[in-house]
Amino acid sequence: MIERTPDVFKQKQNIDVHTEHEALEIDRTGRRVRVRDLKTGTETWEPFDQLVLATGTTVIRPPVPGIDASGVYGLKTLEDGFRIIRAIEEERPARAVIVGGGYIGIEMAEAMLNLGCEVSLVDMLPQVMGTLDADMAEPVSDALRRAGVSLYLEERLEGFESPDGKIKGVLTDKRALPADIAILGIGVRPNTHLAGEAGIPLGFKDAIKVNDRLETGVEGVWAAGDCAEVFHLISRRPFWVAMGTVANKTGRVAGINIGGGDVRFPGVLGTAITKFKDTEIARTGLQERELKDSGIDYVSRAINAKARAGYFPGSGPIRVKLYAEKGSGRLLGGQIVGARGSAKRIDIIATALHAGMTVSDIIDLDLGYAPPFSSAWDPVHIAARQTAKQV
Amino acid sequence: MIERTPDVFKQKQNIDVHTEHEALEIDRTGRRVRVRDLKTGTETWEPFDQLVLATGTTVIRPPVPGIDASGVYGLKTLEDGFRIIRAIEEERPARAVIVGGGYIGIEMAEAMLNLGCEVSLVDMLPQVMGTLDADMAEPVSDALRRAGVSLYLEERLEGFESPDGKIKGVLTDKRALPADIAILGIGVRPNTHLAGEAGIPLGFKDAIKVNDRLETGVEGVWAAGDCAEVFHLISRRPFWVAMGTVANKTGRVAGINIGGGDVRFPGVLGTAITKFKDTEIARTGLQERELKDSGIDYVSRAINAKARAGYFPGSGPIRVKLYAEKGSGRLLGGQIVGARGSAKRIDIIATALHAGMTVSDIIDLDLGYAPPFSSAWDPVHIAARQTAKQV
Repeated sequence: MIERTPDVFKQKQNIDVHTEHEALEIDRTGRRVRVRDLKTGTETWEPFDQLVLATGTTVIRPPVPGIDASGVYGLKTLEDGFRIIRAIEEERPARAVIVGGGYIGIEMAEAMLNLGCEVSLVDMLPQVMGTLDADMAEPVSDALRRAGVSLYLEERLEGFESPDGKIKGVLTDKRALPADIAILGIGVRPNTHLAGEAGIPLGFKDAIKVNDRLETGVEGVWAAGDCAEVFHLISRRPFWVAMGTVANKTGRVAGINIGGGDVRFPGVLGTAITKFKDTEIARTGLQERELKDSGIDYVSRAINAKARAGYFPGSGPIRVKLYAEKGSGRLLGGQIVGARGSAKRIDIIATALHAGMTVSDIIDLDLGYAPPFSSAWDPVHIAARQTAKQV
Repeated sequence: MIERTPDVFKQKQNIDVHTEHEALEIDRTGRRVRVRDLKTGTETWEPFDQLVLATGTTVIRPPVPGIDASGVYGLKTLEDGFRIIRAIEEERPARAVIVGGGYIGIEMAEAMLNLGCEVSLVDMLPQVMGTLDADMAEPVSDALRRAGVSLYLEERLEGFESPDGKIKGVLTDKRALPADIAILGIGVRPNTHLAGEAGIPLGFKDAIKVNDRLETGVEGVWAAGDCAEVFHLISRRPFWVAMGTVANKTGRVAGINIGGGDVRFPGVLGTAITKFKDTEIARTGLQERELKDSGIDYVSRAINAKARAGYFPGSGPIRVKLYAEKGSGRLLGGQIVGARGSAKRIDIIATALHAGMTVSDIIDLDLGYAPPFSSAWDPVHIAARQTAKQV
């Protein structure tokens, strides 16, 4: 195993792990990989019978002035997290600017607030959490503002002010925001230049094309994890998502198949959950934007309810939105934003999507009920009842 | 609507509600019901076109000496709860004995601890929570003992000491427990004597026999809620369970059908969740005892994991047990006991049971993952992987 970073986890038993080594070139006809020892600079050719590409992602760093200034951080590895914590402990930045309002952006906003920073968040979209519909992202924006985050939406990053090589501010197309630290939460993309250069076919968003056994287009070469394309179970199209769950599942399937087994990875729903302080956020399946692209005729309803029984102490609001196919009632996707206990309810919707259930089927689900956890009709039931009326 | 109790909820709009009235007799050929006004004692015959029986349950009160003593409480209605709170406020009982270690028993144990009582719990079974397997009930017993509840298992209630009409102690076949208050949590049974006397066919555990439209064996007579029999989706046999969720669902189906619609209630899984302090408890489908009765050849695995990512602050243990059919791998049931965030995961298993999924299907489910909520492999995934190996 070739691994660029130091061995942080030390979990690889019975595997010959070359940490602080980098793969530079794949010779697919010669079935070997050119590897550089990052400590000594020595290069060698390592032969292979089976090659697994698990090269993950690269943080998107927009080519704007000042992007390489000290104090501008991307976030991908555990090491990145350690570097940010070290910088905060040593430099005590007062003003943090987060660029990007997706999962990483809002989780970092919470972390920076907890570390005592004044936090601003910039996103070029008119909403945070682009994987939610606008109406579902609204309560997330509200929670960010309530917690003291200054939101600058529909503003494009233009650069970082860094007169002496150290960040002093973030420039958008509308303003200059003073900043002692900036975090990039713009996203990641598949890290597949090595595969691409070797002529291994790439697919959606340049992720490595694989079949449901995780085989690439080149015999004996496999890809798994965030660098690999996946199949979307609802759109029935190639898809790409950087998720630890999907990476684990595809790694398992590739491993079993390389070992002589035969298992298949059916695909994904794009399920994702996160939280900002006490606001939990979840989504699965297709959202409005994707449905419009798909050409599927759909109906939808969003309902407001309580995450626990309404009379139970500590019960908070929950908003659940479902999409179903017009006519058939087949479930297409769902989104949830709400108080504690809200997010993991997305698993009901995800499991129903895997099963090809209709919204009417969901009404009948014998879900767990007790007042500390739910009303007798779970909020997901209530959303299904309302959506079923539109079908 | 004929209703024995005072109108606590005041929610019945546009319905002629006769609270504090009792139905005494159903004349099914004459299509009328004899009703007594509990305040005046007046009796009248009320005619009907369609009759809905929603008579709920009766608390099981074992015929032991002292059962009618002051300070011995059953628990069914909101009024029962108010009576207990009033008694506690007025009499400040120091020692509470709970008879029965099921849902009501352990919830009342927590409530009585919170009210400052010394709490003992008696159950004739060798375990608490008889709807769980013994190994899954063990962590619940541990939690009860840790919280200071004295458990007396495999002890049969023989009576209540009440020399002056007021409870002084609880007698089991092994000991006398001093008690200032006793709560019966032995269970409930369908309240169906009225239906039975009228010749309306009864079924499993004397619940009223209904079809999937909630029609009884007598035309124009419907039954819904805790008094009605249901179909068990996994055993494929008649079943009975007193659950608010099922009562709501059957009430909806009966209501739509009486109004001229045509919807069907497919059945239940016996899903139930509760908690004792920070220990969450959940079950669905068939447990070991039921599987042995069913004649289905089954495999099972229980796994121990963490309810959140292992490294996340506040992460606690979770134990998940799954049952699958030997050979086919078809999911048959599941049980969960664990820290906060555990119980509602039963909904994944319940939804998969509705869909007829195998444990291998569960491995592929695209469930929500973020460290505050789960490890990348959800504990339900982990249990499915281990169970699939046994199939």
